[in-house]
Amino acid sequence: MGLVTCQLSISLDGYVAGPNQSSEDPIGEGGMRLHQWALANASWREQHGLQGGERNPDSDVLDEVRDGIGAVIMGRNMFGPGRGDWDEGWRGWWGEDPPYHVPVFVLTHHEREPLQMQGGTTFDFVTDGIEPALQRAREAAGELDVSIAGGASAVRQYLAAGLLDELYLHIVPVILGAGERLLDGVGDLELEQVKVVASDAVTHVKYRVVR
Amino acid sequence: MGLVTCQLSISLDGYVAGPNQSSEDPIGEGGMRLHQWALANASWREQHGLQGGERNPDSDVLDEVRDGIGAVIMGRNMFGPGRGDWDEGWRGWWGEDPPYHVPVFVLTHHEREPLQMQGGTTFDFVTDGIEPALQRAREAAGELDVSIAGGASAVRQYLAAGLLDELYLHIVPVILGAGERLLDGVGDLELEQVKVVASDAVTHVKYRVVR
Repeated sequence: MGLVTCQLSISLDGYVAGPNQSSEDPIGEGGMRLHQWALANASWREQHGLQGGERNPDSDVLDEVRDGIGAVIMGRNMFGPGRGDWDEGWRGWWGEDPPYHVPVFVLTHHEREPLQMQGGTTFDFVTDGIEPALQRAREAAGELDVSIAGGASAVRQYLAAGLLDELYLHIVPVILGAGERLLDGVGDLELEQVKVVASDAVTHVKYRVVR
Repeated sequence: MGLVTCQLSISLDGYVAGPNQSSEDPIGEGGMRLHQWALANASWREQHGLQGGERNPDSDVLDEVRDGIGAVIMGRNMFGPGRGDWDEGWRGWWGEDPPYHVPVFVLTHHEREPLQMQGGTTFDFVTDGIEPALQRAREAAGELDVSIAGGASAVRQYLAAGLLDELYLHIVPVILGAGERLLDGVGDLELEQVKVVASDAVTHVKYRVVR
């Protein structure tokens, strides 16, 4: 069985998204500043069907976090800006060929039929909680890892429930000052630092959650 | 003129001290967990007149942050657990030969005569604010650096006022869940990552504050 992993860009003051998420600000106000290091990188661009970009130590990290993922779980607020009943026209932020290429399970309180996208991505909407979602993701992933993609609330829930094996943080030298904090209310986790990679712009630290 | 620097151990959720500081818990409840990496280290032990300890990449960082400091500024809550009028019997946490060996300026709202300690440490109590304290510390430091030793509130004030040049964080894989957060309310700082050192236990990241 694979691991349950999570990798996120985080501001130096602990936010993984800015405040006031909307269709104009998918990651909240200022949240895109957390991802500039990746957007200009050759690895990220290749993963998103784009050419060019720089290769540096960040590229190896971006390759590493892509590899070995058999299924993805995300919170509804990562899938879209809507709340409450579904707007059935909303099919995610990523167009018809999302960059996941594996089954994606979306945590929601509102039922919806699955979506079959191009390139191997499917979106399944799970309404019975984080543990059933993980069970379905594990079945879909087989021997591969399950990635908890975000947002903060989904990751916090898996951390607090003791269901996460690895947390890989990309620590960006940005102060957001407000937004969604990753590590509030997760309890007294025991973490072990297992890997550090630094580029000029970002420090990547992988933690193992000790059980 | 030297730089104005700060180096602090910080939990992964952004705290530099736990809650409820007292004479039993000088760094708040759980706060000592942020410093275990240093206490067992040969460099820290030597700086505090102790023998033994391990030498590893943390030692180089501990040597680096000791060198070149000509004066220190700290908040009153770092100097002691008391509040309000001074208990004149309180001469700091560190005994008669504190590990500073330079002039130390303590930010306080309550006047007190200077203390001359052994080993070159003096404690001067500054009641007219962070800028006069920095001016006095710069004069005392000459060409050397001024270190803002803590606690969180003192560092936040220097950061928010644009008076800090370098922030060296020792990021410890501990979740404190409560206490004194370093980076709340400091405004939208521009930081540049200038150095990363990793040991098995801690990730040290030095940031330059861009003006």
